[in-house]
Amino acid sequence: MALLIAIADWDDAAWAEALAVLRARTPLRIWPDLGEPADIRYALAWKPPHGLMASLPNLKAVISMGAGVDHLLADPSLPAVPVVRYSAEDLRLRMRDYIVQNVMMHLRRHADYAAQQRERVWRELAQPLASEVRVGFMGLGNMASGAIEILVAMGFALAGWARSPRHDMPFPVFAGRGQLPAFLERTDILVCTLPLTPETRGILNALLLRGLARGGPLPGPVLINAGRGGLQVEADILACLADGTLHAASLDVFEEEPLPATSPLWAHPRVFVTPHNAAWSSPMAVARFALEQIDIMEAGGTPASLADRARGY
Amino acid sequence: MALLIAIADWDDAAWAEALAVLRARTPLRIWPDLGEPADIRYALAWKPPHGLMASLPNLKAVISMGAGVDHLLADPSLPAVPVVRYSAEDLRLRMRDYIVQNVMMHLRRHADYAAQQRERVWRELAQPLASEVRVGFMGLGNMASGAIEILVAMGFALAGWARSPRHDMPFPVFAGRGQLPAFLERTDILVCTLPLTPETRGILNALLLRGLARGGPLPGPVLINAGRGGLQVEADILACLADGTLHAASLDVFEEEPLPATSPLWAHPRVFVTPHNAAWSSPMAVARFALEQIDIMEAGGTPASLADRARGY
Repeated sequence: MALLIAIADWDDAAWAEALAVLRARTPLRIWPDLGEPADIRYALAWKPPHGLMASLPNLKAVISMGAGVDHLLADPSLPAVPVVRYSAEDLRLRMRDYIVQNVMMHLRRHADYAAQQRERVWRELAQPLASEVRVGFMGLGNMASGAIEILVAMGFALAGWARSPRHDMPFPVFAGRGQLPAFLERTDILVCTLPLTPETRGILNALLLRGLARGGPLPGPVLINAGRGGLQVEADILACLADGTLHAASLDVFEEEPLPATSPLWAHPRVFVTPHNAAWSSPMAVARFALEQIDIMEAGGTPASLADRARGY
Repeated sequence: MALLIAIADWDDAAWAEALAVLRARTPLRIWPDLGEPADIRYALAWKPPHGLMASLPNLKAVISMGAGVDHLLADPSLPAVPVVRYSAEDLRLRMRDYIVQNVMMHLRRHADYAAQQRERVWRELAQPLASEVRVGFMGLGNMASGAIEILVAMGFALAGWARSPRHDMPFPVFAGRGQLPAFLERTDILVCTLPLTPETRGILNALLLRGLARGGPLPGPVLINAGRGGLQVEADILACLADGTLHAASLDVFEEEPLPATSPLWAHPRVFVTPHNAAWSSPMAVARFALEQIDIMEAGGTPASLADRARGY
């Protein structure tokens, strides 16, 4: 039995300590050096090449190194083994921190103050209270949960949107495409942590952005996308920023990553670009999670966070 | 009996509705039109000229329009009447929001990501968890209380510093000048909401900044000053930013306000400048607070937040 590590962008130095921890517990193979493919029982993967998993005849499960599994399910030859989503606490907390940071920056109009600072302008701007600002969450899973807890404590006016009705949130949840317009028209700051599936691809487009609240306490609606780049149509976001449909955006993910140097998003004064690390997790935390999940599966149990392949996440 | 409104920088439009509310309850005088000075029993003031209060023979109390009363106590001719500090909930919440916003921006290294964005650089930077970052509060009063509550909930490693020992905080509090070095050497992000008094003037100087933690999880210590400009020595802050003693700063207050266009703080890439509005309060909230305090005093009671003139705040 062996564990395959299949990471597209490998950072040797960052992984040294975590590999030692893994190696102490199980024989390792590091892609592309598979050794005898029949020995490999588990794979810990991030954007592995299509076909790799299908080449492992005794694969029992694949563990994603991120909360999203779109990079695995996109492989049409992926064998019918369990797919485990990464769900460690440090990932959840970092996503919380990214969302809280960006909601607070938009509440306090950081983009506008930064523009004033460049021009050496001392001018107070209207300053809504948190309770006056309506934050809408598209995606109410583990990745959103930490931010929801803090923003509830701060008194923001929250709502959520999900595929199907939810009754476990301390605020209204709109469900399905039918209730999307009602959700959008009460939303000043839209926070997206949706998974990327065939249903959600391109959902953050001009039609959706034009549905956001008008006349709210901020100069215009704000988009925060911490889900996947494939959810957003960047040409639409730029057009909506240009015509005032959207006031500002925080984007951690992009249609193409790294974001090409030619993208106008880099230079937009009201767009905050980060390099897809809203919810970075340490290699050591990933290694520990993988070992825990393997232990559970070897003992015949069900992993902590199994992806539903029909649903797509 | 009349109420005097004495505001140095008057914004007619913003005050129209609040004045109507005040006028419905009490005769008003608006500085510099005093009418008969002997009629004036209360003053609601922001940076009034020295000597004005002494010219009112029947003044019963003066109400500051801000949490700080330094602008009143600096007047050597201020009569020995009660001085009421403004302490409404919207002020407290806005200060909370400013501090949480800025702590989160520094936790998530926004200054460094903004610099990368300007250069179109896609690079992940080390990303500490909140629990790994030590935030130190100088000043533990009403203005800090909202932020403390949220940062405790987020798991930051907090400590405080105060004039005298405190045992009502859910974290260690260092007291007095003697324990200041120990407080500083465990502080990665310093949040200052101290009042300006003869004791605290210039306290945020090079000596203090050089005492902050070295080798912490951020590239260097961070200063957030939301107290008074007179607390800080801007030449020292700039020198400490230049030599790496300080990594970044959020400054809402300045030695001279508005911050002069010639100040190098405007152009520093790791300084966030805001126009002394961390804790703005609406004229309507100020008016309601003043009426409540006048009612209390007219009934012979003690106002909500009386300044201690010996202590200086």
